[in-house]
Amino acid sequence: MVIHRLNDEICFKPIGYVIEGIPRKGDPRRKLISSKYDFISRIRVFNEYKDCLAGLDGFSHIIVIWYAHVSINKPHLVRPMGRSDMPLVGVFATRSANRPNPICISVVELEYIKEEELGVRGLDAWTGTPLLDIKPYTYYDIIRRPKVSDWFLKYWKEKSSKLNYREKYPLLGPESIT
Amino acid sequence: MVIHRLNDEICFKPIGYVIEGIPRKGDPRRKLISSKYDFISRIRVFNEYKDCLAGLDGFSHIIVIWYAHVSINKPHLVRPMGRSDMPLVGVFATRSANRPNPICISVVELEYIKEEELGVRGLDAWTGTPLLDIKPYTYYDIIRRPKVSDWFLKYWKEKSSKLNYREKYPLLGPESIT
Repeated sequence: MVIHRLNDEICFKPIGYVIEGIPRKGDPRRKLISSKYDFISRIRVFNEYKDCLAGLDGFSHIIVIWYAHVSINKPHLVRPMGRSDMPLVGVFATRSANRPNPICISVVELEYIKEEELGVRGLDAWTGTPLLDIKPYTYYDIIRRPKVSDWFLKYWKEKSSKLNYREKYPLLGPESIT
Repeated sequence: MVIHRLNDEICFKPIGYVIEGIPRKGDPRRKLISSKYDFISRIRVFNEYKDCLAGLDGFSHIIVIWYAHVSINKPHLVRPMGRSDMPLVGVFATRSANRPNPICISVVELEYIKEEELGVRGLDAWTGTPLLDIKPYTYYDIIRRPKVSDWFLKYWKEKSSKLNYREKYPLLGPESIT
């Protein structure tokens, strides 16, 4: 058995990277998309991992684990989405990429797999982002009616009505909000 | 902007560890639980990260990202759950802990937060496992009716009827399976 000493660093090598991520602010294509779900990102695993993808196409959704390599700050307390109308909360209570270990996970729709390239809808990582892992999204990842924080609920209600989640991304989110 | 060279290693330090995980095979307490959802695991963040937990108690479910430190093998093709009746698939199409980067993610129910300790239901990590991150489970993590692979669907149907998921873990999984 391997004993991990808790002061040791844990090191990984990327398994691939984002070839083409969502357009950044200033990119003219940015105006064409209203949310990350309007864009199909292209990601690629390194050739040595191509065989690890076998059978992944049996799943409609996957989880992409990526390294927020542009994250520098690691504040312990943040305002979600950097918005001044949001409360100050611990970074572990948010999905901010600026966190002690800048590991991000995104649930995305798998559009295609072509050799070592995957097309995924809903990824909010920039071009060049290193990928740490890819996993299938299974029924164990579904919690149908989780309780969420007031600030998150407020944000979701704004977004889902403005961006019309219900119609455009019909599988996303809880069946109803009470 | 930070440029990550794709050959570079990506290193993290644990933010905490599992104080008491699910009993392993051979542990007499193992007989008392039929699944990981019957057990409340105790996890702890290091004191320096205690403030990062502020506000996390507004969420009923959280995502725990952990390092499978006992994983040694990194096969590219595996049979899910190590079962001979399962097809051979790429490891990225499974949730096996034996993968190129042994990063595991578990959606768990948050039972309590007491200082730097959290009680969580549904974690399948052993005692001593290093934690890489903790995140809230939000509506963006819910896909209500994902398509899953045939082998997964077979496994889920077996488990959910045998362990009575519907009654014991009423929020878990899709509303109905078609």
